[in-house]
Amino acid sequence: MTDHPSGPPVPGRPRIHVPIHLRWGDLDAYNHVNNTSMLKLLEEARVRAFWRADEGPAAPSTAVLESGHASGLLTLIARQEIVYLQPVPYQRHPLDVQMWFGKVGGSSIEVCYEICSPAETPPQVVYARASTVVVKVDAESGAPVRFSQEERAAFEEYLDEPIHLRR
Amino acid sequence: MTDHPSGPPVPGRPRIHVPIHLRWGDLDAYNHVNNTSMLKLLEEARVRAFWRADEGPAAPSTAVLESGHASGLLTLIARQEIVYLQPVPYQRHPLDVQMWFGKVGGSSIEVCYEICSPAETPPQVVYARASTVVVKVDAESGAPVRFSQEERAAFEEYLDEPIHLRR
Amino acid sequence: MTDHPSGPPVPGRPRIHVPIHLRWGDLDAYNHVNNTSMLKLLEEARVRAFWRADEGPAAPSTAVLESGHASGLLTLIARQEIVYLQPVPYQRHPLDVQMWFGKVGGSSIEVCYEICSPAETPPQVVYARASTVVVKVDAESGAPVRFSQEERAAFEEYLDEPIHLRR
Amino acid sequence: MTDHPSGPPVPGRPRIHVPIHLRWGDLDAYNHVNNTSMLKLLEEARVRAFWRADEGPAAPSTAVLESGHASGLLTLIARQEIVYLQPVPYQRHPLDVQMWFGKVGGSSIEVCYEICSPAETPPQVVYARASTVVVKVDAESGAPVRFSQEERAAFEEYLDEPIHLRR
Repeated sequence: MTDHPSGPPVPGRPRIHVPIHLRWGDLDAYNHVNNTSMLKLLEEARVRAFWRADEGPAAPSTAVLESGHASGLLTLIARQEIVYLQPVPYQRHPLDVQMWFGKVGGSSIEVCYEICSPAETPPQVVYARASTVVVKVDAESGAPVRFSQEERAAFEEYLDEPIHLRR
Repeated sequence: MTDHPSGPPVPGRPRIHVPIHLRWGDLDAYNHVNNTSMLKLLEEARVRAFWRADEGPAAPSTAVLESGHASGLLTLIARQEIVYLQPVPYQRHPLDVQMWFGKVGGSSIEVCYEICSPAETPPQVVYARASTVVVKVDAESGAPVRFSQEERAAFEEYLDEPIHLRR
Repeated sequence: MTDHPSGPPVPGRPRIHVPIHLRWGDLDAYNHVNNTSMLKLLEEARVRAFWRADEGPAAPSTAVLESGHASGLLTLIARQEIVYLQPVPYQRHPLDVQMWFGKVGGSSIEVCYEICSPAETPPQVVYARASTVVVKVDAESGAPVRFSQEERAAFEEYLDEPIHLRR
Repeated sequence: MTDHPSGPPVPGRPRIHVPIHLRWGDLDAYNHVNNTSMLKLLEEARVRAFWRADEGPAAPSTAVLESGHASGLLTLIARQEIVYLQPVPYQRHPLDVQMWFGKVGGSSIEVCYEICSPAETPPQVVYARASTVVVKVDAESGAPVRFSQEERAAFEEYLDEPIHLRR
């Protein structure tokens, strides 16, 4: 559908790997994963990569953000771009959502992704490439809030070249 | 919210255990899993429990149904009932959806469920109880199609007392 | 799929009519409205029928409930039942969700529904019948809160025989 | 959240206006319309603007596309971009999704949007700006299919300057 190559993901780069299970309900009447469901997968990958885990499975080292009204902080989405490279069928193995950061600003961060076929079924292909600008804001006022030193340090481990989705 | 006890699940019964991950997007503006998202979890548990897997993780012994337009067969939902016992928060461990069959008819089956908190964080509680009547139909005509011997045999291993959700 | 008659709705009964537009995204890979999307339609019908409208289109006389964390009150779902009578295709006219109350308790109410084909394209058929028990609770404690006199009076206008979905 | 102005929409341009009702279920745990729900609204606006209507409310003059497996044609999404300008609260009046075309190619079309607050509650603001590249493909082979003369003529009425979402 585009002139972007669809695979495989480039090895040897700093990447957070978040396994995300599809649901059959992610399919639309065309019998492949709906274009908006792909962004639901990205949302879940962000939550798992970023938000501090109280308990549960070992979270990545980037899971340092407090978020939610209880914390007084929210993470809002300022913009998103996504290029769909090939239709995604329902499958039981989790997709391998690979994430890194194209830019870490004062209170915003550019998250880059490659949504890849499951690591369990090589050779992997890239189904979609995307980027999201996330802003940390005060839940009350909506004003941007600067990342802490701990947060920046955690993110900078995964700083890499921004994804290029421009035409 | 009801007089149904909310926990824990009864041990020692024939149960298919399907781990289903929540998504943060399953929450609604009340900050707990939406009432309709709970049925999305049941749908995914059914697909994983019933549909024949071409490849991927080992599927339960009940994964014997062909489904989808390619197969000429569909599995439709005739009715559903659900009792919500307590609000479900977002969490990283998969919920433990426990399933069994209350009745195996000629071309329909009553699926019973207890949606339980993760097996990884005991003591488990039951968040919701539900039942679904699924009918196997011809994709073209919509007419009911009888279960095969293989299908009945697979299902009957998990036959148990139907869930009682009546008031 | 069931022995419940699928149409038409019975005229001359006390009914709140809430027009709800389908979205193409409500369809699943079977190309008809997904079983859980039907409950999304019921949810939206309830919100429009019950929640006090600050502004906007004239709301029904039952739109007397405050809800949401700001009000300190929530409306939770205790149980739901639904019988699917026939597959629902995508269509541009809004479905005609007909609602009434089977029982008005101290702090809970049984909402009954018939999800009907659009009023604009007679003869109407009933696609599904359902009931939901809604409980008014304190947002902080989760404890049930009694309906006010104004609320009961508004609801009792639409009291009618409960729907019978029992097998 | 961005330096894009959030309102009001520019008058006097060629625009298809598609009213789309929010659902309370579009909100997420932050109590405003979820970032992916915004793309669901765009999807529904596209279906209503593009797909030939068999029956139902008068469709815009651009509703000339056959789509779906029955027709042998699909409309796939190749890429999407969206800039979120301000949080969208639940409201009863339909949002005013304004659409036009930035480019009409041989078998693909760039759809531009401004998601505006309801026309019924002036002054209007722009909640989000977005663009989608849609490709017409053969359902069987996935190969691009050229737009017909009728289709191009219908689209070109709404050709206007592409939206600029670049940083």
